[in-house]
Amino acid sequence: MDQQQLFVKMAVDGWDQQIKFTNDTLDKISDEQLLSEISPGKNRGIYLLGHLVAVHDLMLPLLRFEEAAYPELVQPFIKSPDKTVADLPSVSLLKEQWNAVNEKLSAHIKSLPTADWFTRHNSVSEEDFAKEPHRNRLNVLMGRTSHLANHRGQIVLLVPKA
Amino acid sequence: MDQQQLFVKMAVDGWDQQIKFTNDTLDKISDEQLLSEISPGKNRGIYLLGHLVAVHDLMLPLLRFEEAAYPELVQPFIKSPDKTVADLPSVSLLKEQWNAVNEKLSAHIKSLPTADWFTRHNSVSEEDFAKEPHRNRLNVLMGRTSHLANHRGQIVLLVPKA
Repeated sequence: MDQQQLFVKMAVDGWDQQIKFTNDTLDKISDEQLLSEISPGKNRGIYLLGHLVAVHDLMLPLLRFEEAAYPELVQPFIKSPDKTVADLPSVSLLKEQWNAVNEKLSAHIKSLPTADWFTRHNSVSEEDFAKEPHRNRLNVLMGRTSHLANHRGQIVLLVPKA
Repeated sequence: MDQQQLFVKMAVDGWDQQIKFTNDTLDKISDEQLLSEISPGKNRGIYLLGHLVAVHDLMLPLLRFEEAAYPELVQPFIKSPDKTVADLPSVSLLKEQWNAVNEKLSAHIKSLPTADWFTRHNSVSEEDFAKEPHRNRLNVLMGRTSHLANHRGQIVLLVPKA
């Protein structure tokens, strides 16, 4: 395993681990419980789940894998705060989309050639990337790993006491 | 910048960013507010702060930088759940220790030669490391970045509404 392969493995393992932790957490929370606030006056579980689906969906074009599948989630779950949008998708639909988007990402992640991880992501120009080579696709994955960990730490508050 | 330097920059930037986010969050929360639970029945802010100090302090030996400075924090903040230990250090002392341990880590992180990041961390034997080269010091930093993001997402719940 060369240096690039090793580093990609480290970053992808970190991503996979946070996805697993989050799914293990979601498995312990009912759809109804996800309608609760994580703490009084704070975001509801459904909002955090929708936010994660929307952000992961946008990783598909950002990583230059494919087009986003759920652009309709950007307005209610990224641009708007919780409890300001009347009609949200159901928790069960969001859970389906959550699994679908992560499966798509996983398939792309597993098949991307190692060297391609160190090419630019879609929000940086060729010109800027030449000066800032850290703005690559693997760095997006690493940033989104922390983003997921951040919100997983919140969703876990909805797990009922054993 | 060669490949190794690029990887190290990506991982260290991610760490620095989470430290900054956490400090920005802590700056908005008074010592008294840190005594509150992040959600009814859940961990208190003081416990999460102490937990982060204890975990970051243990990174010093784990990364083979130096000995831990606050081994007395392991029992109350790692081995014990919140609200089971009667005498905890004050929030102001924990905040001092939080800044001190992160400054120590930062100094070591900045001065570690690039290639040394890809050597084993202190919990893996030379023999196992030969077979599993991803168990290196940089991987510890990446894992602890997610750990910090996870708990930052919880501490932020104590920020008072503007």
